[in-house]
Amino acid sequence: MLSVSIVGGSGYVGGELLRLLLGHPHVEVRQVTSERLAGQYVYSTHPNLRGRTDLRYSPQSSLEPCDVLILALPHGSAAKNIEHYAGLGQAIIDCSADFRLREPETYSRWYGEKHPAPHWLERFVYGLPELYREQIRTTRYVSGVGCNATAINLALLPLVKAGLIDQTKPVVAEVKVGSSEAGAVANDGSHHAERAGVVRSFAPVGHRHTAEIMQAHGLENVHISITSVEMVRGALATCHVFTKGAVNERDLWRAYRAAAAEQPFLRIVHDRSGLHRHPEPKILAGSNYADIGWALDENTGRVVALCALDNLMKGAAGAAIQCLNLMHGFEETVGLEFSGLHPV
Amino acid sequence: MLSVSIVGGSGYVGGELLRLLLGHPHVEVRQVTSERLAGQYVYSTHPNLRGRTDLRYSPQSSLEPCDVLILALPHGSAAKNIEHYAGLGQAIIDCSADFRLREPETYSRWYGEKHPAPHWLERFVYGLPELYREQIRTTRYVSGVGCNATAINLALLPLVKAGLIDQTKPVVAEVKVGSSEAGAVANDGSHHAERAGVVRSFAPVGHRHTAEIMQAHGLENVHISITSVEMVRGALATCHVFTKGAVNERDLWRAYRAAAAEQPFLRIVHDRSGLHRHPEPKILAGSNYADIGWALDENTGRVVALCALDNLMKGAAGAAIQCLNLMHGFEETVGLEFSGLHPV
Amino acid sequence: MLSVSIVGGSGYVGGELLRLLLGHPHVEVRQVTSERLAGQYVYSTHPNLRGRTDLRYSPQSSLEPCDVLILALPHGSAAKNIEHYAGLGQAIIDCSADFRLREPETYSRWYGEKHPAPHWLERFVYGLPELYREQIRTTRYVSGVGCNATAINLALLPLVKAGLIDQTKPVVAEVKVGSSEAGAVANDGSHHAERAGVVRSFAPVGHRHTAEIMQAHGLENVHISITSVEMVRGALATCHVFTKGAVNERDLWRAYRAAAAEQPFLRIVHDRSGLHRHPEPKILAGSNYADIGWALDENTGRVVALCALDNLMKGAAGAAIQCLNLMHGFEETVGLEFSGLHPV
Amino acid sequence: MLSVSIVGGSGYVGGELLRLLLGHPHVEVRQVTSERLAGQYVYSTHPNLRGRTDLRYSPQSSLEPCDVLILALPHGSAAKNIEHYAGLGQAIIDCSADFRLREPETYSRWYGEKHPAPHWLERFVYGLPELYREQIRTTRYVSGVGCNATAINLALLPLVKAGLIDQTKPVVAEVKVGSSEAGAVANDGSHHAERAGVVRSFAPVGHRHTAEIMQAHGLENVHISITSVEMVRGALATCHVFTKGAVNERDLWRAYRAAAAEQPFLRIVHDRSGLHRHPEPKILAGSNYADIGWALDENTGRVVALCALDNLMKGAAGAAIQCLNLMHGFEETVGLEFSGLHPV
Repeated sequence: MLSVSIVGGSGYVGGELLRLLLGHPHVEVRQVTSERLAGQYVYSTHPNLRGRTDLRYSPQSSLEPCDVLILALPHGSAAKNIEHYAGLGQAIIDCSADFRLREPETYSRWYGEKHPAPHWLERFVYGLPELYREQIRTTRYVSGVGCNATAINLALLPLVKAGLIDQTKPVVAEVKVGSSEAGAVANDGSHHAERAGVVRSFAPVGHRHTAEIMQAHGLENVHISITSVEMVRGALATCHVFTKGAVNERDLWRAYRAAAAEQPFLRIVHDRSGLHRHPEPKILAGSNYADIGWALDENTGRVVALCALDNLMKGAAGAAIQCLNLMHGFEETVGLEFSGLHPV
Repeated sequence: MLSVSIVGGSGYVGGELLRLLLGHPHVEVRQVTSERLAGQYVYSTHPNLRGRTDLRYSPQSSLEPCDVLILALPHGSAAKNIEHYAGLGQAIIDCSADFRLREPETYSRWYGEKHPAPHWLERFVYGLPELYREQIRTTRYVSGVGCNATAINLALLPLVKAGLIDQTKPVVAEVKVGSSEAGAVANDGSHHAERAGVVRSFAPVGHRHTAEIMQAHGLENVHISITSVEMVRGALATCHVFTKGAVNERDLWRAYRAAAAEQPFLRIVHDRSGLHRHPEPKILAGSNYADIGWALDENTGRVVALCALDNLMKGAAGAAIQCLNLMHGFEETVGLEFSGLHPV
Repeated sequence: MLSVSIVGGSGYVGGELLRLLLGHPHVEVRQVTSERLAGQYVYSTHPNLRGRTDLRYSPQSSLEPCDVLILALPHGSAAKNIEHYAGLGQAIIDCSADFRLREPETYSRWYGEKHPAPHWLERFVYGLPELYREQIRTTRYVSGVGCNATAINLALLPLVKAGLIDQTKPVVAEVKVGSSEAGAVANDGSHHAERAGVVRSFAPVGHRHTAEIMQAHGLENVHISITSVEMVRGALATCHVFTKGAVNERDLWRAYRAAAAEQPFLRIVHDRSGLHRHPEPKILAGSNYADIGWALDENTGRVVALCALDNLMKGAAGAAIQCLNLMHGFEETVGLEFSGLHPV
Repeated sequence: MLSVSIVGGSGYVGGELLRLLLGHPHVEVRQVTSERLAGQYVYSTHPNLRGRTDLRYSPQSSLEPCDVLILALPHGSAAKNIEHYAGLGQAIIDCSADFRLREPETYSRWYGEKHPAPHWLERFVYGLPELYREQIRTTRYVSGVGCNATAINLALLPLVKAGLIDQTKPVVAEVKVGSSEAGAVANDGSHHAERAGVVRSFAPVGHRHTAEIMQAHGLENVHISITSVEMVRGALATCHVFTKGAVNERDLWRAYRAAAAEQPFLRIVHDRSGLHRHPEPKILAGSNYADIGWALDENTGRVVALCALDNLMKGAAGAAIQCLNLMHGFEETVGLEFSGLHPV
């Protein structure tokens, strides 16, 4: 059994990690930390785990060595203490943005401050198995991927791999997101009477995930907007891409099939009829699937590339467990078998 | 023109009062107070009023005399300073719970502390025009009515007036409420990811509005539960009443028609077909209607008496303006003509 | 491996049965029928199962013998053809209302027509393991339990078992339900613009589940209302009960602990602090738990007994699988391990 | 008093027209037609109008001459019978898509059939007062504007008027829409359990409103996607535009102020702080405002131009009344004064 501890376990990613690890056949959850809630049962904040575990939160000061340390901390915390964490965990999976970018300069430009541990950037592998599976298998350090970045990364993946994108034209990517993306701490903007039913331009320009997407795919002309909609979990990326030369449905089927082959969590959704012709996040709540699909406007050469996922699963905790599985030679899908619900 | 000021204008009831008063043909809004937001435009917190007014919040210290002072303060504040407010406003409408109960002892029992100004209790008229219209016309002091209390009061009104209730059996009243009832201040329970989609037993027993309902109708055996559901505005009271002797549909039609006659904001909703056979809150958002109706189980003598309303309108600000109209000899419905929307 | 077929697999209960059976380690899904969709992939209507199975719908005419036949048909269909189905399945689990009542007369009174196969009524065990576990272990025929009935049955269970209910006073049970209760077929009332955000009195009196609840618990004075709220899955039963003699918190803890002991899917939720002090349906989506709890008004002797569940799981498909497990000597919880999600 | 009749009054646009006309001081509603519901009270389908009117639906065969005939029919119906309608109404406002495009060829290309009355196309003025106010004042025939087209038209208006758009680069416009856009007739896709909480790519490419937007603004490189989100009323257009040369915040303020000047229903929403920094549809339900705003990425020259509105109001019925006011010399805002609600 692999011993795994979660640092920062009281947030939504922490809760989801815990749910997955408690059901994972090869894992024993050693500790879950929270400074504020030390001593309390984890189910006080993760009520779905009532009856599932008697674990209580520990303070970070009591952290013991373990096989894998998963960091689910606010951005900036992991990098500041990475040496300390590396001394405790044989392997580290960091869910924050701290180790996603390879170049310290890129980090400074997008995050507005110097990286506190720049020499660690190259030790971390970007935790997107669909792009870096082999590197993840052999590394001890994996960084998480931004939830919106994952949605855009996977939406664009088939087109990038097939070389279909006309890079002289802008790629415009809109992500519609649920409220869980903003985390578990209440604020004025999350107040239900204000947040319910909104279509709110949360980050119409300047979203930091732009940097990691351009890095992952080697693209430069990518423009992102994030819009909050009525939903708790889930994200849908709608990416407007213009193709190099004329492209038809068969070309796209070929590109998508090639991209999805041997990817256990990529499903192609592109049906001619029915309600679920395109990817949709709502049926993915709790599942690790990323559903990808497209619509083609042959007259204009625009492809609308779509990806739906659960931001707390494939966008965060699920991807982390998928990496954990790869790093330890487990079946890639173990502990991640939940199919999602319908209707929901 | 009547000069009206709102004390405590930054909350949801304050915003709704302001919306109504700005559209009221016989009223000039003099001042709107907020300590925290003094100096800021009222539309910074009430975005629907953008372009409608250039009013800014004033601090209470700058309050000037006016014809009507409407108090939209947290419970307890009005009573503590009632002498001060009475010196500023020719008339006072208090939306809080401070002056609803006639007996200081009842207040102490339900609110857990001595009333700070018990001799003022008898000067206030309970602001439910459907029961106290004539008294409201001639008083200078009107208390608001709890939003849930209004829903239950009006649901029960036809049965009480017709003497149909078997008082040896309990009256069980369930109110399903939206998130705006909890006010404009964010807290852990109002965090969207936690509050969205809930069916939450907010106050299954012990709700304070019980006291004013029993007082209003002279009933003793009333049992209330409040449940929060996914909705921002609106409340539906479902009251389970057992009748004295057998009652049929015609008896109930007669009772409801008698109760609704000459009540401009009571509508009977009791249809045999269609989607809207019973009262429903969602189509009442922004309107001052209270829709009342019933279902009868002839086998058991149970009547389910229903009342839907908008908690911020008929349950608070709308009722306050209705009282203001009565107190000043205006048409009772002036400024309250909005019909509500469908679909919505 | 147990071979199991689902008759009527295109509805929401059918889809949920299929999801559970596909993940069940001791079961092989043999056939899933749908007349309308025969030949189509099951994931065309159950999009969460895309990538999980290549099963297609079969017509009923092609049904083959199997170990267990689960009937997920509209009410009335199972009873009319029960001899036929009994010839095909070694065991039958019927999710409809056809075999829930023991007395043909009770059936006629509540369902308005003669039972088509009255002699079969006594062969079926009412599929509520919390009451009839031993009988279910040894029968070949199990009837489903109404989803609302399950919520009320389990809410009342601790009080009934402890003999705390004053049966001279009415038990008033309100269930708030989501839209999936109405099934998968669109109608005017399910049209999103009309159904979204409602608090709609769906069955304020006369709900048929009353009959099975009174039968299950031997109660007579039970009064039900069903209210539709904004939610897809889930039900919360709020049952107002008056106690025989004075009851305190300790009495209730004792009663609830006794009732929940050895019941793998009953969880007591009765916390003094936190957001989830009472049972709530939203965190139960996809799980087979029934969360039970209470609130006590010591002044009036009223206990508000609560039960939250997922109407498609513990209220239908999950309970069916729980019975299947019991009938075949499997671990009662196998295939039903999903804990539910938070936040959601 | 102007006599106005509505042809096709049972749908959502019809209901909204009726609500507005009943409150319009210079209008008398003569007739409201519905073949299916002839003889029934209009409030049977528009429950918000209960108590407001005793009008019943008439069959079209009973239509009498009137001053203004407003057509709220399915696309295609108005054009087929335009001669008949023109014989009944002194003026005609058609809410459908039939008379929006000037060129019959453009109509054929986007609507897939020959226009049934091409010579009428030039008689109709495109009913967008913000572009065609003077023409509307003097015409007898006004066409409606697509709800999504209005959102995009008004989002782009300031940039087009100021000549800031680089037309060599694509304009990508995403509109997030509520369920009322799909009309009042239930279908599989509008079934609540399927539609609730979706983020569904309704028309990722090929939306017909593209044609009228390009015509209105003389643009060619416009690419539209429509996404359905959880909301009943409302639309938000998010338009990604690249500017000719460098543009700064001051340039944009100037462009927006110029565009909004003297436009009574355009409000600029572009705040540095607060929750409502950008336009949002939810506070516009029932109002005729179109809120416009922007976000600028100075590094890339991308402007995200935003417009929020209520699709049934500024997107349909409200715009129709605004045109009616202009055509008859009334104050442009009369009957359209409702400010919208907050919270909601």
